[in-house]
Amino acid sequence: MTEQNLAAMEFLNTCRELVDTELDRCIEQDGASERLQAAMRYSVLGGGKRIRPALCLAAARAMDVALEAALAPACALELVHAYSLIHDDLPAMDDDNLRRGRPTTHIAFDEASAILAGDALQALAFDLLANDHDRTSKARLAMVRELAHAAGHKGMVGGQAIDLESVGKALTLHELENMHRHKTGALIEASVRMGALCSPEPDADRLEALTTYARALGLAFQVQDDLLDIEGSTEVIGKPQGSDMAREKPTYPSLLGIEGAREHLHKLLALAQDSLADFGPEADPLRTMADYVVARSH
Amino acid sequence: MTEQNLAAMEFLNTCRELVDTELDRCIEQDGASERLQAAMRYSVLGGGKRIRPALCLAAARAMDVALEAALAPACALELVHAYSLIHDDLPAMDDDNLRRGRPTTHIAFDEASAILAGDALQALAFDLLANDHDRTSKARLAMVRELAHAAGHKGMVGGQAIDLESVGKALTLHELENMHRHKTGALIEASVRMGALCSPEPDADRLEALTTYARALGLAFQVQDDLLDIEGSTEVIGKPQGSDMAREKPTYPSLLGIEGAREHLHKLLALAQDSLADFGPEADPLRTMADYVVARSH
Repeated sequence: MTEQNLAAMEFLNTCRELVDTELDRCIEQDGASERLQAAMRYSVLGGGKRIRPALCLAAARAMDVALEAALAPACALELVHAYSLIHDDLPAMDDDNLRRGRPTTHIAFDEASAILAGDALQALAFDLLANDHDRTSKARLAMVRELAHAAGHKGMVGGQAIDLESVGKALTLHELENMHRHKTGALIEASVRMGALCSPEPDADRLEALTTYARALGLAFQVQDDLLDIEGSTEVIGKPQGSDMAREKPTYPSLLGIEGAREHLHKLLALAQDSLADFGPEADPLRTMADYVVARSH
Repeated sequence: MTEQNLAAMEFLNTCRELVDTELDRCIEQDGASERLQAAMRYSVLGGGKRIRPALCLAAARAMDVALEAALAPACALELVHAYSLIHDDLPAMDDDNLRRGRPTTHIAFDEASAILAGDALQALAFDLLANDHDRTSKARLAMVRELAHAAGHKGMVGGQAIDLESVGKALTLHELENMHRHKTGALIEASVRMGALCSPEPDADRLEALTTYARALGLAFQVQDDLLDIEGSTEVIGKPQGSDMAREKPTYPSLLGIEGAREHLHKLLALAQDSLADFGPEADPLRTMADYVVARSH
């Protein structure tokens, strides 16, 4: 493990501890149905790398904001991510039984509970942002706006729809990137932007640089996912190896070849790192996060 | 048809026209997937009485706010209602093929599109509230807070979970009311409160009176729904008659008998009307809406 990877792992661990404590707290309060709440907790608290919260916290630090002051948006992002995984895994969607080495929510509970747990987690994300007393009404509203846009039909859900329509189809590189920009890119971009927006007066140039970083990183993340799907083992990646290929989903390696995909990944990584050129050591967590995305094995 | 019913129908028609135009506009903008957008439009624009938007607009008027100034929250409420119907109708939930006399969304499209359309509509509701330039950041945030709470695991989705857990079970009247307070009551309460919150400086006593009105009306609405399920014909109510009974769902008539349910309905209606005692003619739309809920045939 390189030194930078070690730093990234340390930062990720710090973020994970902060975020997991906060997530545990915000689904602890009494809901109407114990079973629903159990399904929500199972889905959110069952591990996960917390990459989106970590990016949010890292972007906050790049704007000289304390990690603790960015916890609400970081958790809201993870709640939306968790809900999207639950719905993605449903029989009518990707029909996955295994996620992070554990039964998916509709297997551990039932389909109806899984649908409702996802629905409730999305609402909870906005609840959390709206009740974030760390910041002004205006700043909270900016967060709601970012997340609603990134999560909706012009963002993540739109990307999932394109993904479903693309099964068995030959896509161009442009079409593949368009899908990923929506499906995973929008929420990764929102993660970085919401972290930056934790600054009381976010500088426009810096916000734009961080947006460029996030877009490049979002695509790099996906290229690495595709490579892992071919190269990783089921044990390490937590889902059957080669499952995307088996479903005839278009991937970067299927379009560019494995070597071509690796080159593409490194170009995107360089773009992400270059966009941070005007930042000092306050952006080191973002830099190590970018390297981690490429070096990770799952 | 009584004079009050006629007034309610006229008010509902005015609201429906305003709301339908606005809903059409807000799902018209380019999304990522045409099919997803078509499923969203099919679900939202396929008719419906628009009772929640009408309650929101009527509450705005009771606070001397112009109907047009309450359109964004009215539409956001309908988007959440529409998404909940889509997910409710899914095979894993109520498994309904017919809604308002038309094929349900997962029949007209497919299950995956229906799940995603619901997800996207929820996000769009918050998007709409956050971008409502008619009001201050603080007021917009109050709307987001109301809706997120009413839609989530402590509100509507929590109620749906209780509902699913109750199939085939004997419930007490208290348990039945608890389910309805969450499942349909929370969003009806939010409809009235969000309308009232359109006032630049909502009077606390008036807001509380309107909340009492909304709670009583929400339950009355459900009692009438249960009665219609027994008494109405498939043609008029748009779903197979007696379908709740057939699924062994607990209902007011099954607990109180038909006459008992009717009495309960009229008590709730009286409570709703009494709570408006301190209001003048500005609350007439709310008064006629309450009468309409009891007199409606579907």
